[in-house]
Amino acid sequence: MKKAGYRKTRLDAAAPGVHDARMKAWLFPLLLCCGFVSADESPITLVIHGGAGVGRESLTPDKEKQCRQVLEQAVRAGHAVLVKDGAALEAVQTAVMILEDSPLFNAGRGAVLTGAGTAELDASVMEGRTGQAGAVAGVQGVRHPIQLAEMVMRKTPHVLMIGRGAEELARAEGLRFEDLDWFITPEQVARLERARKKSAALDDNDFSLRMGTVGAVALDRQGNLAAGTSTGGLVNKRSGRVGDSPVIGAGTYAENGVCAVSCTGHGEFFIRNVVAYDVAARMKYGGASLADAAEAVINEKLKKLEGRGGLISVDARGGIAMPFNSDGMFRAWIGPDNVPHVAIFQD
Amino acid sequence: MKKAGYRKTRLDAAAPGVHDARMKAWLFPLLLCCGFVSADESPITLVIHGGAGVGRESLTPDKEKQCRQVLEQAVRAGHAVLVKDGAALEAVQTAVMILEDSPLFNAGRGAVLTGAGTAELDASVMEGRTGQAGAVAGVQGVRHPIQLAEMVMRKTPHVLMIGRGAEELARAEGLRFEDLDWFITPEQVARLERARKKSAALDDNDFSLRMGTVGAVALDRQGNLAAGTSTGGLVNKRSGRVGDSPVIGAGTYAENGVCAVSCTGHGEFFIRNVVAYDVAARMKYGGASLADAAEAVINEKLKKLEGRGGLISVDARGGIAMPFNSDGMFRAWIGPDNVPHVAIFQD
Repeated sequence: MKKAGYRKTRLDAAAPGVHDARMKAWLFPLLLCCGFVSADESPITLVIHGGAGVGRESLTPDKEKQCRQVLEQAVRAGHAVLVKDGAALEAVQTAVMILEDSPLFNAGRGAVLTGAGTAELDASVMEGRTGQAGAVAGVQGVRHPIQLAEMVMRKTPHVLMIGRGAEELARAEGLRFEDLDWFITPEQVARLERARKKSAALDDNDFSLRMGTVGAVALDRQGNLAAGTSTGGLVNKRSGRVGDSPVIGAGTYAENGVCAVSCTGHGEFFIRNVVAYDVAARMKYGGASLADAAEAVINEKLKKLEGRGGLISVDARGGIAMPFNSDGMFRAWIGPDNVPHVAIFQD
Repeated sequence: MKKAGYRKTRLDAAAPGVHDARMKAWLFPLLLCCGFVSADESPITLVIHGGAGVGRESLTPDKEKQCRQVLEQAVRAGHAVLVKDGAALEAVQTAVMILEDSPLFNAGRGAVLTGAGTAELDASVMEGRTGQAGAVAGVQGVRHPIQLAEMVMRKTPHVLMIGRGAEELARAEGLRFEDLDWFITPEQVARLERARKKSAALDDNDFSLRMGTVGAVALDRQGNLAAGTSTGGLVNKRSGRVGDSPVIGAGTYAENGVCAVSCTGHGEFFIRNVVAYDVAARMKYGGASLADAAEAVINEKLKKLEGRGGLISVDARGGIAMPFNSDGMFRAWIGPDNVPHVAIFQD
């Protein structure tokens, strides 16, 4: 078994098509001069994640293949929105909905189960252009929590809605519901059993029980940024526990001209450290590049606190950073090369 | 009627005993040299608020007098904790519990009512020394939501708990409950009726219906900072709507060596702009003083967005800032002069 340790991963240097924010700083003007991109069009970029905390030992070759397939499908679908001049937020939603529908990831169908054996779902979205945001926490039965988060943003004067009140909005707006059993997969039932046997409370060291969340960040042709995150939270969690995913500033943040961020990991650490906004603040007030800001938050600040997880992020130029300090983080991206890349570990 | 406008209020310059962060920068070393404070003791400070958005026209002399009395009682009680070398968080809780019990303020008893006629309460606390935090949203029947927030912090591995799950924790920990009717005051019933008549939805321009929250920030003798916030939210709100008060980073934030912040106002703006943490980030990464950071967030950033409200804050030296861009903000403080000060408008 591979020793779980903190590893630096500013970017997957070996993977083609990835450019960090500093590289972008000279690449973009260069492409501009050469006529490869026009001044009024941003280099469209989509990055998605399927959660941090996966261990190599828990991933069979067959399951890894399935996960990679779904990640590629999701990143392709979201990117197709951007190619057709669609909005960053629409691309984010499109990708996240595919991950929510997949039983392989901890969001929507296949979400981990609470101590009560139910799937309580959280999600959020934020739009960099308007600074608008929407989020839901503790909802049941809503097939696509990310859609409901967007509904809170668009259809109400509110940002965060929880539980029954949020479900009523989903009904009123005609969002798709599924039977509560539809969300529950045999794998998650088994996982809950294992978690219950292990301890009444959670074993703090069993990261595989804690992690898992899906999310996406995008930069569209108009230069608008957006971010979205969706999760089932923590296996065997107390009913009512909410992690960072629906917390704007912690799990999700987007601001045009700065960056878009979606987080995954041990949610309590991400809330206390206001992780998503902290990346933006280091850029805005400290002049850090996206790569340095994201790295400092995940591999310095959170690492010191033993707060495990990672994030995906894109800046206003399409530069991306995907640091994580856990064993692995499911992720995929399509940048200026228009080619989908998928990675799980420090490949 | 006084025209509601944005007013700059870095500090209540006319009120005695208030020193802004820059003043503190030279005052503290001076007092230190003169032997008035010792090097290992911080100048204890407590600041509390009872909500922003109050209009002069809606405040009768009699009600103003009652509000001032409760504010003074709360700030004195919290400060007494600090005088006895108590912890900043205990001082914060002590003051907030008095405001929660008062029917005059929108928290605990006397909280505004949701569209369904119920009091759904939110609260949060954060401790600067440990970076620990606790928060609850959408709870009913718990007499002191601020206590429950602290319970989430101390007794669970979680930060944020909502609804029934949070209430179960309160029961398990033996927190005091009251009948749901106990929270409902005739004044709030009348207010809900007025809000319902005005519009099915809320009138965006009626700030007096939106505001109101209580909170406290403290610096204790050991140099530890803490912040806490408690609210009933928004009158006639949709059931399930949660504002900024239970959102760490938005309504509440504390970090030793930097600042402690508690916000009040139109919560959605405070969530989207991650207000409490933004004050800290401007200080940490941008080198701003507390006064400048707080002023920039409330009277520049939020003002431009027409996001009404204010905040109270204290830095690591005991410097305080209490800017607001609404008509008034109930507030009280005791600084190094050991004298309680109470203010409502731009006195």
